[in-house]
Amino acid sequence: MSKTIAGPEIERLIQLLSKLPGLGPRSARRAALHLVKRREQILRPLGDAMAEAAEKVRVCSNCGNIDTRDPCTICRDPARDQTTVIVVEDVSDLWALERAKALNAAYHVLGGVLSPLEGVGPDDLTIRRLVERVAEGSIGELVIAVNATVEGQTTAHYIIDQLADFDVSVTRLAHGVPVGGELDYLDEGTLSAAMRSRTKI
Amino acid sequence: MSKTIAGPEIERLIQLLSKLPGLGPRSARRAALHLVKRREQILRPLGDAMAEAAEKVRVCSNCGNIDTRDPCTICRDPARDQTTVIVVEDVSDLWALERAKALNAAYHVLGGVLSPLEGVGPDDLTIRRLVERVAEGSIGELVIAVNATVEGQTTAHYIIDQLADFDVSVTRLAHGVPVGGELDYLDEGTLSAAMRSRTKI
Repeated sequence: MSKTIAGPEIERLIQLLSKLPGLGPRSARRAALHLVKRREQILRPLGDAMAEAAEKVRVCSNCGNIDTRDPCTICRDPARDQTTVIVVEDVSDLWALERAKALNAAYHVLGGVLSPLEGVGPDDLTIRRLVERVAEGSIGELVIAVNATVEGQTTAHYIIDQLADFDVSVTRLAHGVPVGGELDYLDEGTLSAAMRSRTKI
Repeated sequence: MSKTIAGPEIERLIQLLSKLPGLGPRSARRAALHLVKRREQILRPLGDAMAEAAEKVRVCSNCGNIDTRDPCTICRDPARDQTTVIVVEDVSDLWALERAKALNAAYHVLGGVLSPLEGVGPDDLTIRRLVERVAEGSIGELVIAVNATVEGQTTAHYIIDQLADFDVSVTRLAHGVPVGGELDYLDEGTLSAAMRSRTKI
């Protein structure tokens, strides 16, 4: 707002809320108003939850996931197959695979992809730790689930090279037509890949 | 998420964020991840801003606006025409009029509209305080800027009745075609009103 219509505390709340993904300046104002009108139901609990998360959040020293404990909830989970490790670029990919209930396994979060142009080399990612985990000997399969971009594929190849000396099975996600997707809107690379990997029905 | 993939603190953060307007479960997860990955830049400052707002937010005892001080920033502002008072249903309407820089005046926030069906009577709104303000004698014009709904208009009429004995000029927002609006998409009531209030160009 060009003119101050509320105290600096509310202005600051709006300004910080507008930094959240999915909230523009307008929806940040709406969210701020929603919060200040529901002080005890949401504003105070959310403030407390943020303070607590800020205090406790850490990066898992084993897999690179973000959690409030280290090792993270997933690395500690005895109900998961800890011998299968899904390699992802980012925690958001881990969350997406978990929402899909894709595989009841462990993860390794790289923290990005190799990108010489942006100055991201192997030491900026958690590749060394991934090799260590494989060297420890308990991992049977590594599922490379990086994005199907050039950088993602370069990173996948680099990881496979680093693991050449180890007895670990390396797989990747299948390429193909998205479920519910229309062929007409798909790119040629995806269509070719889906055709090459066609399966018997 | 059906299965716990992060500590309870992060799950709680997601759950509370999803109560904000404009954030569904999916975007709440995205926002939570954005926050925990930027602990010092956003998570902690936003948590602090919420705690501070929760501590300081109050309803202005003069006009019903929400602010961190009482009387509110607008009621204290000597650069505003405090003799003109814009009557709105909700703080969000006040903010909308301020964004539009509609009029450099004071406000009165009713806190809703009369609605017998929902059990909202005059004592649930700040109408008594509005009459008091008018009775104090310094208000020259009251701009009724309630929504153009049946309840809004009923409320406007009730307020005008209550003010019958006072020497105050009561106006309302003009009806008409929204700027940039297409006639084809407008309802008949708006078109008739715009035609009746046509102006010379």
